[in-house]
Amino acid sequence: MTSNPQNLRQNTARIRVRFAETDQMGIVYHSNYLIWMEVGRVELCRSLGIRYRDMERDDGVLLAVAEASCRYLSPARYDEEVDIRTWIESAHRRMIVFGYEMVDAATGAVLAKGETKHVFTGRDMKPARLPEKYMERFGIAKAV
Amino acid sequence: MTSNPQNLRQNTARIRVRFAETDQMGIVYHSNYLIWMEVGRVELCRSLGIRYRDMERDDGVLLAVAEASCRYLSPARYDEEVDIRTWIESAHRRMIVFGYEMVDAATGAVLAKGETKHVFTGRDMKPARLPEKYMERFGIAKAV
Amino acid sequence: MTSNPQNLRQNTARIRVRFAETDQMGIVYHSNYLIWMEVGRVELCRSLGIRYRDMERDDGVLLAVAEASCRYLSPARYDEEVDIRTWIESAHRRMIVFGYEMVDAATGAVLAKGETKHVFTGRDMKPARLPEKYMERFGIAKAV
Amino acid sequence: MTSNPQNLRQNTARIRVRFAETDQMGIVYHSNYLIWMEVGRVELCRSLGIRYRDMERDDGVLLAVAEASCRYLSPARYDEEVDIRTWIESAHRRMIVFGYEMVDAATGAVLAKGETKHVFTGRDMKPARLPEKYMERFGIAKAV
Repeated sequence: MTSNPQNLRQNTARIRVRFAETDQMGIVYHSNYLIWMEVGRVELCRSLGIRYRDMERDDGVLLAVAEASCRYLSPARYDEEVDIRTWIESAHRRMIVFGYEMVDAATGAVLAKGETKHVFTGRDMKPARLPEKYMERFGIAKAV
Repeated sequence: MTSNPQNLRQNTARIRVRFAETDQMGIVYHSNYLIWMEVGRVELCRSLGIRYRDMERDDGVLLAVAEASCRYLSPARYDEEVDIRTWIESAHRRMIVFGYEMVDAATGAVLAKGETKHVFTGRDMKPARLPEKYMERFGIAKAV
Repeated sequence: MTSNPQNLRQNTARIRVRFAETDQMGIVYHSNYLIWMEVGRVELCRSLGIRYRDMERDDGVLLAVAEASCRYLSPARYDEEVDIRTWIESAHRRMIVFGYEMVDAATGAVLAKGETKHVFTGRDMKPARLPEKYMERFGIAKAV
Repeated sequence: MTSNPQNLRQNTARIRVRFAETDQMGIVYHSNYLIWMEVGRVELCRSLGIRYRDMERDDGVLLAVAEASCRYLSPARYDEEVDIRTWIESAHRRMIVFGYEMVDAATGAVLAKGETKHVFTGRDMKPARLPEKYMERFGIAKAV
């Protein structure tokens, strides 16, 4: 992966597990990892100078989730701090794929790995091309 | 309460506790009861001939939550069926108060009691008066 | 798929979209589909004569989620009824894979397709073999 | 309230609104404020030298929610930072009441005010008296 310059576009966000996120197994309920991925994605965008809220509000550009997947390796538990490492796996003007690794901040143990694929849409939720002004920040080369 | 004709406006909805709704105490996490109250409220409206979705979409009438409270009497547990009894406690053209009682469907044990107060608003979320066509269904008398 | 006798082990559960499940895009937030899959899975088990709650409580058999994925085809919206078709894709004594198709009950439109892979564990969350008494219900053949 | 020395036991925690916490009104769904209160409560305990996780795990002391209420004054929105000011309103060996004020960190606008009442229980969820070692930290005077 070191040959992929897009790996430079990565960021780590930290959250603390909420009691509300646990289930009666005593571990984090599995759908919450998708919410954590959203936190990681938003913070990665922020680190690239893109505030998702503004992109949606000012330019009518939405990121509709097309696919999501997660592999659960070790359960996260209440009150632990979790680092969500997020990066852009691939991107072009119609879609973007984010990769995620969630790690126990105290021990470094990998808790889960995930991926989400999104299509850019307008406010009508119909597929659209990403406006040129955002391309460079997402690492999308302009066509020659 | 038998003297209050608005008690005629009541309805019971049934849900089954989801695993996702439990926490590591092995019981339902307390914020979920507010979501169940929403289920009860929506079904009460439906039983009165009001589809909340249409009221919002077609007439721009929203029910903004102003207050919510819940007393937890006995914990609900995974996979149990819960009856949400919902009624209109009071209503006028600017606001409406719903009452709730959540009951274990198998044993009849009362799990929780709650109340939510809502103000009618327009799409701009500013307070508004309920359109006349909905008044009777909510049991709001027209001013003479 | 008609050649796969395990497709006989399928079931359809119906839910209604809750307001709490929507997000500011006006559609169901994507992590909720994983919760719906859990609803489908629990009801499939029930239809096979397995109450997941009892399996966990009485026999200490847990189904730990190892992988989950979902493809989102068409957004689900507030107050719609959704049919969750669930089936066993494959199973042996150490793990089981469920497949899901979520369909708009009114139009028949496919909203999403998903898959979850689980490992059987004991109460200590360590991998364990499924007790023999459950094998037939899950469609797992006994080794000769 | 300045006459109440228990106001010294207060703390402010900051969260950022997640997309998952919004609903189709474009604002935070109201049950999420109860989860934020839990975040505030846990951080207040931490600031008092009490890690709730350890109290539960090591001493079998649980804080069961008996009542919760919230008044919603101004809607919180996606990606805003919210300060959750939390304090102990009253406490004795059988129960504790927390107060909360949630504030838009950017503007200082009060978003919501809440209160939760908890009873101390053992692992069996039966009411119990708080062990002496925790009394001082919660500001509970020892009986003479």
